Amino acid sequence: MTEITPMTEAEADALIAGIGQRARAATLALGQASAARKTQGLHEAAERVRSAANALLDANANDCVRAEANGISAAFLDRLRLNPARIEGIANGLDTVADRPDPIGAVDQNWTPANGLNISRVRVPLGVIGVIYESRPNVTADAGGLCVKAGNAAVLRGGSDSFESSGLLIECLRDGFAAAGLPRDGVQRVPTKDRAAVGAMLRGRGAIDVIVPRGGAGLTERVFNEARMPVIGHLEGLCHLYVDAAANLDMARAITVNAKMRRTGICGAAETLLVDRRAANTHLLPLIDALIAAGCAVRGDEICQAADARVAPAVESDWRTEYLDAIISVRIVDGVDGAMAHINEYGSHHTDAIITDDAAIAARFLAEVDSAIVLHNASTQFADGGEFGFGAEIGISTDRFHARGPVGADQLTSYKYVVRGHGETRP
Amino acid sequence: MTEITPMTEAEADALIAGIGQRARAATLALGQASAARKTQGLHEAAERVRSAANALLDANANDCVRAEANGISAAFLDRLRLNPARIEGIANGLDTVADRPDPIGAVDQNWTPANGLNISRVRVPLGVIGVIYESRPNVTADAGGLCVKAGNAAVLRGGSDSFESSGLLIECLRDGFAAAGLPRDGVQRVPTKDRAAVGAMLRGRGAIDVIVPRGGAGLTERVFNEARMPVIGHLEGLCHLYVDAAANLDMARAITVNAKMRRTGICGAAETLLVDRRAANTHLLPLIDALIAAGCAVRGDEICQAADARVAPAVESDWRTEYLDAIISVRIVDGVDGAMAHINEYGSHHTDAIITDDAAIAARFLAEVDSAIVLHNASTQFADGGEFGFGAEIGISTDRFHARGPVGADQLTSYKYVVRGHGETRP
Repeated sequence: MTEITPMTEAEADALIAGIGQRARAATLALGQASAARKTQGLHEAAERVRSAANALLDANANDCVRAEANGISAAFLDRLRLNPARIEGIANGLDTVADRPDPIGAVDQNWTPANGLNISRVRVPLGVIGVIYESRPNVTADAGGLCVKAGNAAVLRGGSDSFESSGLLIECLRDGFAAAGLPRDGVQRVPTKDRAAVGAMLRGRGAIDVIVPRGGAGLTERVFNEARMPVIGHLEGLCHLYVDAAANLDMARAITVNAKMRRTGICGAAETLLVDRRAANTHLLPLIDALIAAGCAVRGDEICQAADARVAPAVESDWRTEYLDAIISVRIVDGVDGAMAHINEYGSHHTDAIITDDAAIAARFLAEVDSAIVLHNASTQFADGGEFGFGAEIGISTDRFHARGPVGADQLTSYKYVVRGHGETRP
Repeated sequence: MTEITPMTEAEADALIAGIGQRARAATLALGQASAARKTQGLHEAAERVRSAANALLDANANDCVRAEANGISAAFLDRLRLNPARIEGIANGLDTVADRPDPIGAVDQNWTPANGLNISRVRVPLGVIGVIYESRPNVTADAGGLCVKAGNAAVLRGGSDSFESSGLLIECLRDGFAAAGLPRDGVQRVPTKDRAAVGAMLRGRGAIDVIVPRGGAGLTERVFNEARMPVIGHLEGLCHLYVDAAANLDMARAITVNAKMRRTGICGAAETLLVDRRAANTHLLPLIDALIAAGCAVRGDEICQAADARVAPAVESDWRTEYLDAIISVRIVDGVDGAMAHINEYGSHHTDAIITDDAAIAARFLAEVDSAIVLHNASTQFADGGEFGFGAEIGISTDRFHARGPVGADQLTSYKYVVRGHGETRP
């Protein structure tokens, strides 16, 4: 699409209203579609992604050339670029979602209150889900696949840098759905790079039922501020690892290095290491040493600086920083209470872990730390819908409303009450 | 509180910020409080309501005198007025909520994905819940009790006409909580009649996590438009009753009269009766006759008018009207498909019922009608948290996000993932 003049607000609103009407029509068929048909549609989509691999690589090469000409960063270009392994990963994600249990029609609860009615709470789709994301083409397939698995219609607005490759992926999904007798409009793209369309999506209550921002903090903050419909979004992942005096040192070392360094740019990466004061003489130095050996810069409090001259001073703002980089802040705390006080003060309620062999201390941490994911003796990097067995994720919610933590197809549902009577009238 | 000058926005914001800080502090203790302690606190509150009955009647008499001087309607005055039976009803509601299973700490799901971690999804409180409601004093106790049962802190802003009686009820709740060792600030009131406080609540993201409007359409619409935090609200209850050709006539008659006339002013009251064309000669006239005999005005299509001369013509707007009065619209439809087409076009997705002895037709209606509550062979007036066994309700949500249908303590929760490992690092 060649764009000469920017869209007006009214043009953008009309565009989104039309997309919303087609999406609403698609939800009627998708909400009633059998599990087998949705499974087939997702497998058909995966096959079309595989068949289109060469065309996807060509389209993506065009996207990358344009993006480089626009002066994007190397990290951004890496997220944008497709290769045969990544294309197979996208297809495989669709196959995995296809083979998961169907969330729709599942009965959460069934009971008979005193009035004798039989009541079931049954899972139904949410409706039309708008997804606004940056230029990672795999999000196109993950988001579209998860929405349709749960009987929803997706309206996708990817970053303009991936316009050509995302567009082709969406055609693979739509063709796959059509081959299974599902509506093509189960997934639609917003067919313009014009940013006015984002504002129209956020205003489009009635056209779009739920909006999912998947990208940086700036995008998420804008969506929370402007959206006229519910949001499933995530803000920061300022994740902590607390190493208790009762921690096995080898385990603590392996998990610390993994939690920080496996991938530093994901929201489940640890940003702050808290070490029990009673372990300062036994565990602190080996942990700092292992982090530095793995290529991590360490900033610490005075005890940490005294323990290892390579530790730079940590200042107050370090405890509030999501580095998303090979940097960690380290602090000595007074046992699990000190750790929880720090996490309560500085954390983002995303993912926090404790390493200890003391079951009672672990139980307190798991119960009292108020985060979407709390782990005992495992790496924070497991904060991921795929690792949770969801097949894929549309994001990791740090909100408490509706969905919290990794969001898969099960979280993209609502419910209704089905009540079976025998002629009852209410007294 | 005597108010001389209206509050400024800044004063209202400061008031809500202070209330929010005390509420947040209360959530820390409430979130960890044992089930037994919360049960005790709610029973203690119920006892204090009973002990304060005379003082409540006096305070309520003062409220009613002021409200009458302000020229309120008789229906409004009826909702505002307390009597000994209503006070016992309020206390009994608290006792019922107290004795319900505790929602916090319940494990929804437990599983072990391929990575070997053990994952539990565990129920936790939502946080601070703001409730904005009109002048029914019982809402004060229902809302406060349900919030605290689920470990949340409540910030209550009742209608100014019930200021004195609601204030005394809140003191009963707070004293009861304190007697059980729970924080008094589990329930706080907004201590001013000034409407500026409502705006400050809606702006107060950070102070208030979720807002619940409980009142008319004007209030709910304002809250949906202005709130900067998630909303649990309900809009219209435009409920339908469909009488199929395979309906037992006696059952259909009893349910029709009950669904419309038991109480006409509640959101679960039926507003439109749809009758299968194949039953026009057998069921239509007896149903119209029974409604009119019960004191209901009937507006119908041409077939209904031809069937009974007392039927007034229904116009297009009748199908879209929530009468909340002794008026019903009646229409002939072509079987269950015609009924579902009408409901899809005109309904509000609140509560809809089918009367039929045909199990296959009932199954289609229950599956395909997209409403919060769908009933087979039972009255729409069962749309109520008490009837569902929730003890009380904070409202009936017509939204699909987070909570749908009657909202009890279980719906005022979030969840977290508790992950137990054995030293796992992510590959």
